[in-house]
Amino acid sequence: MNMGRFERDLIRFPEAIDDEDYVIVTYYLETAMDIEKAANAFAAEQSTGTWQRVGYETDDLREKHGAKVIGIYPIPGECPQNLPSGTTMKEFGAGNRCIRASVLRLAFPHINFGPKIPNLLTAVAGNLYEMGSFTAIKLIDIEFPDSYLKDFTGPRFGVKVCRDILGVYGRPLIGAIIKPCVGLSAERLAELAYQGAKGGLDFIKDDELLADTTYNSIKDRVKHVMAALKRADEEKGEKTMYAFNITDRLDRVKELHDIVVENGGNCVMLNAATIGLEAMRELAEYTEVPIHCHRDFAPMWARSPYLGISFPALTKLFRLCGADQIHCGAIQGKLYETDEEVVTNMRACTLEFGGIKDAMPVSSGGQWAGKSPVNARKIGHYDFLHLSGGGIYAHPDGAEAGARSVRQAWDAVLKGIRLEDYAKEKRELARAIEHFGSVIY
Amino acid sequence: MNMGRFERDLIRFPEAIDDEDYVIVTYYLETAMDIEKAANAFAAEQSTGTWQRVGYETDDLREKHGAKVIGIYPIPGECPQNLPSGTTMKEFGAGNRCIRASVLRLAFPHINFGPKIPNLLTAVAGNLYEMGSFTAIKLIDIEFPDSYLKDFTGPRFGVKVCRDILGVYGRPLIGAIIKPCVGLSAERLAELAYQGAKGGLDFIKDDELLADTTYNSIKDRVKHVMAALKRADEEKGEKTMYAFNITDRLDRVKELHDIVVENGGNCVMLNAATIGLEAMRELAEYTEVPIHCHRDFAPMWARSPYLGISFPALTKLFRLCGADQIHCGAIQGKLYETDEEVVTNMRACTLEFGGIKDAMPVSSGGQWAGKSPVNARKIGHYDFLHLSGGGIYAHPDGAEAGARSVRQAWDAVLKGIRLEDYAKEKRELARAIEHFGSVIY
Repeated sequence: MNMGRFERDLIRFPEAIDDEDYVIVTYYLETAMDIEKAANAFAAEQSTGTWQRVGYETDDLREKHGAKVIGIYPIPGECPQNLPSGTTMKEFGAGNRCIRASVLRLAFPHINFGPKIPNLLTAVAGNLYEMGSFTAIKLIDIEFPDSYLKDFTGPRFGVKVCRDILGVYGRPLIGAIIKPCVGLSAERLAELAYQGAKGGLDFIKDDELLADTTYNSIKDRVKHVMAALKRADEEKGEKTMYAFNITDRLDRVKELHDIVVENGGNCVMLNAATIGLEAMRELAEYTEVPIHCHRDFAPMWARSPYLGISFPALTKLFRLCGADQIHCGAIQGKLYETDEEVVTNMRACTLEFGGIKDAMPVSSGGQWAGKSPVNARKIGHYDFLHLSGGGIYAHPDGAEAGARSVRQAWDAVLKGIRLEDYAKEKRELARAIEHFGSVIY
Repeated sequence: MNMGRFERDLIRFPEAIDDEDYVIVTYYLETAMDIEKAANAFAAEQSTGTWQRVGYETDDLREKHGAKVIGIYPIPGECPQNLPSGTTMKEFGAGNRCIRASVLRLAFPHINFGPKIPNLLTAVAGNLYEMGSFTAIKLIDIEFPDSYLKDFTGPRFGVKVCRDILGVYGRPLIGAIIKPCVGLSAERLAELAYQGAKGGLDFIKDDELLADTTYNSIKDRVKHVMAALKRADEEKGEKTMYAFNITDRLDRVKELHDIVVENGGNCVMLNAATIGLEAMRELAEYTEVPIHCHRDFAPMWARSPYLGISFPALTKLFRLCGADQIHCGAIQGKLYETDEEVVTNMRACTLEFGGIKDAMPVSSGGQWAGKSPVNARKIGHYDFLHLSGGGIYAHPDGAEAGARSVRQAWDAVLKGIRLEDYAKEKRELARAIEHFGSVIY
């Protein structure tokens, strides 16, 4: 019986470790190797060792610098081969052994890498991903001691200050991504920002595909956009935050940040995975405005069940590196995650994390007014940023109407009224439902 | 008949594009959508568009900034669902459509992102990886026009200068990774470097897990190592290159480079994927010594057949970003790639690439003397760096003997003598074969 087999095979090595000295990482692993041998090979590969034990690798060195196996949890059943394994497949064939899954917990002495993101990633997510003898390797969680976290700034602003800047409480922040993604002049884009802001948006952002370009520079954009938002803010009596995408060559990021801040900009954005998490961490030490963290490129690290880093773990890393707002996927959207996975990503933005501030989770991807109820129900609280792109900018009556439709939808949600009923008196919401389809509850 | 179906379904859109204005990317794609619709949605998502066509997206804007579909090649047969697809699976179920594969070629106008690595990655490998409607997305090739390449430094030194520095021609460079990976003092590590160099190594490197640490700083290490190598070089009458791993916080990389150069170091190393490709590109503009590019973390982007970036494409990117030496996997090693895949990665180091210099490919992972013949046969030339870790440092008679064993193995290969025969007169090689196992031809 499988359950019995699971019980019998349960192995733990609660090696006596001083928690403050270690970063603890949990992996999902598939291998045809003996799981105890595999766990030790895995720990060695990522710390002191190699495929051959070296003579002068002393016990003292292993004790101080070796990764420790602190838990092995075999999973019942057999697995197919889920990743290519090069020439090591010959080994598998020869022994005629089956592939089995397990959850492995390793403790890495942080003296090996220090409070440095690139070196941390090399230690916990480096060479092991290419080992032919592991046919699945996914980092599913990462835990840091306070002694490690204390060297990181984390988000400078967090949820509270983002709300304070806007003066918005008791409901999600409502935002938009300007569409079309690229190709607009600074003047035209500012006009679109004005329309959205006027319609009630709290937040607007550059698409991740638009940064500092020859046809629309950050300098031009921040001037035109902030002037347009000043006008909109005065007219609506509310404030608007705009995330300028300063993803660029590394030597230009701080320069672009300064241009944004000097021209009255109130938020910057980084495509954190393409520029590198370390670049965001460095900006977090410097920034004077919140950092909006876009996740493009990172789904490549996270989407396979058999390889990479889980998104909740990655969200922790984004937060460690100073993201004030983090893309967490889309509730009922067009992305690959289930709603439950999105909610788990969001939890990683706010769970207790030593002295590191919380970050505001972002629900984005295929959103429009009619998805407000399902966002509210699935997420279960209002501390998030609800972002629409086409759902606002492709509203049949334009961006201002698009923004109004989402504000109206959230008014209805907060009042406990069905959107279709509320839409009887709210033209923009009615038109959105007519155009985009059924409301999702 | 499948072949007939393939012929019938072949679609091409050779849109008239000016090659100089576009970066051309080839993807492997699986989707249940109509492939032509999917290709256009894909192109829109990564350039001007979103899930909803926006009214003011003009034809002129699309013409200038939109990604162009320049080839669609449907693959015969049906696919299982190879990646999770969130709530979009409902769509698939409803229509009861099968998932089909295709190869898709897209042309991205580089005016959208400019000669900037993070923005390039966002454009070609950004949001599309999280689209639920694509159940496999792998970037398999990327081609750049000269007008784009001209803004990149590429490798400063390349194969020729790396050889000139050492004065080694007509055979592979022979190198080692110091083991144990971490935990050694600078003095102890320098002593091990001396032993290896004395035994005939051309090249030695820090393990990717060792960088600038509290117990062994770059400053101490470069002093001790370079003094030890000076001694070894005088004694052996040959030169040795040492790659110091300066992967660190971004604001320390150039400082560490300077420490290496000022103390006589002749090579620096970066874990390019964990620190970010852009960080290497920036260093390439600045460096005075060759850059050794370690690939740890990148297998997470490359190993799944259904997600990410192929390693040959990634190798091109490493080269574009200035790597003089690039890890390409291991021939008959412990990694996930077949030998043929490793050889393809290696080709990407040297193929014609506009004005960008070539890079020296590195074969590393589970290597020792007895794998020299198979490396020679499979790679088919000698312009590569053959790196062993445990295969040298775990030699039963120590590192000097380990280094000698690999030099002897290559002498035998160059002379066309079987290693077992050559070993009759060469004790170190004999001991290696005795210890590590059978020679692979």
